[in-house]
This record gives sequence, C-alpha cells and structure tokens, in this order.
Amino acid sequence: MAGGLGSRFWPFSRNERPKQFLDFFGTGRSLLQMTFDRFRNVVPASNILIVSNIIYRNLILEQLPEIKSEQVLLEPTRRNTAPCIAYAVNRIKATTSTANIIVAPSDHLIMKEERFIETIQEGLDFVEKNNSLLTLGIKPSRPETGYGYIQVGEGTENPRKVKTFTEKPNAELAQVFFETGEFFWNSGIFLWNLKTIDSAFNIYLPEVAMKFNAGKDFYNTEKEQDFIDEMYPSCPNISIDYGIMEKAESVYVLCAEFGWSDLGTWGSLYDLSAKDDNQNVILKCETIMYDSNENIIALPKDKLAVIQDLNGYIVAESNNVLLICKRSDEQRIRQFVNDANFKFKGNYS
Amino acid sequence: MAGGLGSRFWPFSRNERPKQFLDFFGTGRSLLQMTFDRFRNVVPASNILIVSNIIYRNLILEQLPEIKSEQVLLEPTRRNTAPCIAYAVNRIKATTSTANIIVAPSDHLIMKEERFIETIQEGLDFVEKNNSLLTLGIKPSRPETGYGYIQVGEGTENPRKVKTFTEKPNAELAQVFFETGEFFWNSGIFLWNLKTIDSAFNIYLPEVAMKFNAGKDFYNTEKEQDFIDEMYPSCPNISIDYGIMEKAESVYVLCAEFGWSDLGTWGSLYDLSAKDDNQNVILKCETIMYDSNENIIALPKDKLAVIQDLNGYIVAESNNVLLICKRSDEQRIRQFVNDANFKFKGNYS
Repeated sequence: MAGGLGSRFWPFSRNERPKQFLDFFGTGRSLLQMTFDRFRNVVPASNILIVSNIIYRNLILEQLPEIKSEQVLLEPTRRNTAPCIAYAVNRIKATTSTANIIVAPSDHLIMKEERFIETIQEGLDFVEKNNSLLTLGIKPSRPETGYGYIQVGEGTENPRKVKTFTEKPNAELAQVFFETGEFFWNSGIFLWNLKTIDSAFNIYLPEVAMKFNAGKDFYNTEKEQDFIDEMYPSCPNISIDYGIMEKAESVYVLCAEFGWSDLGTWGSLYDLSAKDDNQNVILKCETIMYDSNENIIALPKDKLAVIQDLNGYIVAESNNVLLICKRSDEQRIRQFVNDANFKFKGNYS
Repeated sequence: MAGGLGSRFWPFSRNERPKQFLDFFGTGRSLLQMTFDRFRNVVPASNILIVSNIIYRNLILEQLPEIKSEQVLLEPTRRNTAPCIAYAVNRIKATTSTANIIVAPSDHLIMKEERFIETIQEGLDFVEKNNSLLTLGIKPSRPETGYGYIQVGEGTENPRKVKTFTEKPNAELAQVFFETGEFFWNSGIFLWNLKTIDSAFNIYLPEVAMKFNAGKDFYNTEKEQDFIDEMYPSCPNISIDYGIMEKAESVYVLCAEFGWSDLGTWGSLYDLSAKDDNQNVILKCETIMYDSNENIIALPKDKLAVIQDLNGYIVAESNNVLLICKRSDEQRIRQFVNDANFKFKGNYS
C-alpha cells in the first residue's frame, strides 16, 4: 500500500512526493524501496503488487525498476485501506485460486530485518494452515499514545486470538496498556489466505465485495483501468480495521518485536533516529549547533543549518517551504498545511 | 565605497555577494543601486566613482549599467577606508585641479531622501568655501551602542567644529550621549574639496600620499590597474577616521536628520523595518506565523516560512545555508561564519 499523502511530515513530504517516496534517512533508498527490498527476501518481485494513487504511477516505476507496470494497481481516488485491499485481492483472485497474502504499508520503518522476515514466515505458515485473519502486533517499548492497540486473549501461544482492537489511548490509558503486557501495537501489517479474506469481504463488506466482483472479467485485461476508474470512486471510504478486522470472528495476532515504527509523526522519527550529544536528530543536512538541544533538523542534502539557542523544535525544509515549530506541537502541522493551502491556493502544498 | 564584505549579515550576504549588492527590502534595487540613485540627484552619473574590490567588478557593472568601467576603481586587496579614499582622490586629481568631493558608503539606508539631498547640498556649499573636512553627524534617535559618536563644540551654527570623535559607547555612556544633545552619530559620510583632502593626506598620512603620488602618470591610462595592483597591498590598513579625521585641525560636522542607518547589524535592520502586528519583520518571503513575536525572517523571495512559537530570533536563509539564532546574540554570527568556514573549508562562506 503506497497511496498515503503523508501530510504530517509537511513540508518534508509533499502531495507530489509523500513520505513513502522519500529517502528519509539519507540511505539512498526511499521507504517504498526499503519495503520492496525487505519483501524480496520472502516473495519473488513478480508477486509484489503496489496499490497507490494514479498520480504516483511514474514515481513508483522509477523507484522500482524491477517491477512491471501491471504490478502497480492505480486508485483514481483515495478510499482508505478496505477498497485498496479489495482491489489487490480481486486482482490476485483473477490470477490464481490459492494464495497466501501479506498486506503492508510502504512507509513504515523496520529496523530488525531478520526478525521481521522470520515473523512474516511464521505468519505465512499460520495462514497457510488456518482460515483466520492475522495481524502483526508489536510489543510496546513505551506507553505510546500515537498508535492503536490490540488486546490479546488469555494464553501464551503465538499467534493468539485477538480480544479487542482499541483506538489510540490517552496518556494514562497508554501507561496501563504498557504495564499489563496484554496490549500490542497495531502495526497495520496483515496476513491471510486468499479464500479467507475474500470470504471476509463477502460477509463484512458485501457492498465492496460486489463492486469488485463485477469486474472479474476485466482484471488483467486492458479494460481493468477503465473499470476501476469508474467503479472505485463509488466505494465507501473505510479502513480494513474498521470494516473487517474489528468485526470478524477468527482474528489472530502474531506478537513480535522487530524495531517497528509507522513513522507517522516527527516524534516517532525523532525517537527512532540516532542523536548527537545534545539529543539533536539531524537528517541528511550539515549542521553547526550552539546551545541547542532535542531538535530534529531535516533540510535538503548539502544544506548547512547554523542554529543557536533553539530547543525542542522541528526545523524542516523542502523546496520552497521552511517549517519551524515546537516538537511538542507537531499535531498542529496539519492545520499549518491547511492554512498555507488556503492562503496561497495550493502553491505550497 | 563598495568594498565591504558584510559578514554580519551572513548567510543573507556572502563573500561573493555582500550586502551592498543585495536587494534587502525587496524593492527591486540593491543598496548600491539605491545609493547611486540618490547621488544622481546631486552629481552627473559620469562624476560618480565606485571603489570596490576587484572581485566585485562585474557585479557592479551589471548593477549599474549607467556607468563606464573606468568609473569602477578596483582594489586588489582590502586596506580599509584611507587607501580607498586616497585612490579616488588621486584619480580625481589626475583629471581636474578643483573639485568638491562626497565620500559615502554604498550600503547605508537613507529613508528621507529629500532631506538627505538638501544636507548634501549644504555640505557642498560649505566645502566649496572652506578648506575644512566635513562629516555628516546624525541626530541620535535612541541611545545606540552600535555607532561611534561625534561630540560637537559650543554654539548653534551648523556645520559646527568637531570637539572629539568617540568609539562605540557602552549602554550607560550611550544614554549620557543621547541626553546631552552634544553627540551625533558618525555616519561615515564625508565632504571636502580636492585641495583640502589632498593636503590632509600629505600631512597626516604622508606614506599613503607618497605611494599614490608615485602613480600620477598612470591614472586614467591603461597602466593604472597594474600600478594599483602592485602598490595597493603595501598600503597600511587604516580608516580615514583614525588616519585623518581624528587628527586634522579643521574638522566640521554638519548635523542632520534624514532617517539614516548604517545597516550594520540585523538589529539595525530590525529597528528600521516595517513590522507586523506581532513585531515580526519579514523580508521578501511569504510567512505564516503562529504565537511568534519579534523575529526577523529573511528568506529568498517566493519561499514560505511557517513558524510557530518562536520569539526574538533571526531566521535567515540564502543559497545553501539556513541560520537560526537569537536576535540578542547576533554579535556571535561572525563566530558562526568562522566556524562554518573552518569546518567546511569555505563551502558555505
């Protein structure tokens, strides 16, 4: 899944280049490319489908020269994860009658790649043998309020049955979740076999299932895109979590620990990144800092930032926008983007 | 005089484009061009000489297409104002035997142009009739510690004889200077007739006078530049204030008020510039500010700065450098430039 806009990282990420397409850490590979690299250890490149917005088609083909254009599934409009996954499932169904499927966002960070691959293999074994929906739950390393949590049932086996999915908690609740050991971060990475997810769509999102079934003669033909372009906008805007996972009977969580972050916020990026002696995180650019602590500085490569007496700020620049705001107020960035769009009619979005 | 490096405005001004060449206020004219425009009201363009470093030759000819290349006097190296003025004086002396001369920096701001021109005319009348050295003294509008002061003698006539030149005072002394009414800011703008300044060089800086006299057959010939290139580096590094004005007998000050600033610091630029409702000064760029007061923001044209919860800072960007530092600590910028030069071997100077 590579269709997100990543506006929380504005101006570092932009509509024309959201965060999955950015080389966040200056490694030379974008988050999408790193995700692709990771899964090539598990499945052949030809079995990887990228679902994204139609406007990112060329960017994806540029970044992933190993895939063919028909492996990029193009959404004409954004409808959240349920229609996105339904599209991929129906495309696979038109090609084969049995398959084990991994669904993953393309803009997450995974630090322990070997542990991740082992986990994915365990998950594939499980969904090969079980007609259950499986999600990866991450053992919390802190009482994070930025993630949804999954509560597991009793027992010690892994995977374990999911008890409940919960929304992002407040700070006190996050502390309780963290201490009990019954709660895991909802990673948004799913595994299932083709039959099980197809059946789940038919049961829990029959309207969506019907819409995609109607195109069964068009998948893998030159009529596919026209069909999708016409039908897709009529799909409900709904997440796979809300539409299926929270409602289905047989939902399991595979608990794991592989240095995961959804990189959803500057805060999570700050937490994960290497820091200098004064707890500053510097991404890509050069810096000279005086009396400055706990900042995250993200300027284009080859830029020099000279910063004095600044503490706890995000300083991010990309193209024609410079953002300076408190790390503790980063949730206001969406408002800043909206204000900028309104004031400058999209010139800086 | 257009040879300054303006490093205090780094990174807004750079070695390859110091402040006199910048369009500081986004008016479309650089400080040099504005200075040239001002003096065209007083003297014909063909009577204006620009003395600057040889590296700025092309920049000057680009910015001032109205002047011929021989009107640009090129210093091969920096030797402060006394040799710079000696050069211009000797060039004039090789052309004519009588002249009234105005010497002015090219990087000052003058807000009341009509008052300035009237003052210059009064000064020219004075030096036409008197063999005195005349400097313009600015009536202080605040107890500024960033300028040198001129103490005037008794009486009410204008121009008046100079009593003493003083260095930049500390805050208490500046307050005393401000309250007595006897002290004026030393503007660094001088008027004199050719004979008087030539004679003053012979008396107070005979070594410099001799060096320039030795080239009397070369001025206005194709040998002039070679002569200057060879001789100029051997001149002492000395200001006209220290070398002549503070020592000469007949030195007068013409007291005036024409909205003057030497624009020597971000602070002076801040004080002079139009402010928004939150006392922010925005130069050229677009901004959206939240909970931010008393900043000076100078980004390239067409850039957008989105700034939240920042108070009393300089945010300046030019080419590949972003500076964020406290307005109250701007005297440290020279150190920052030095550190950057040392660390990055001049890549960002």
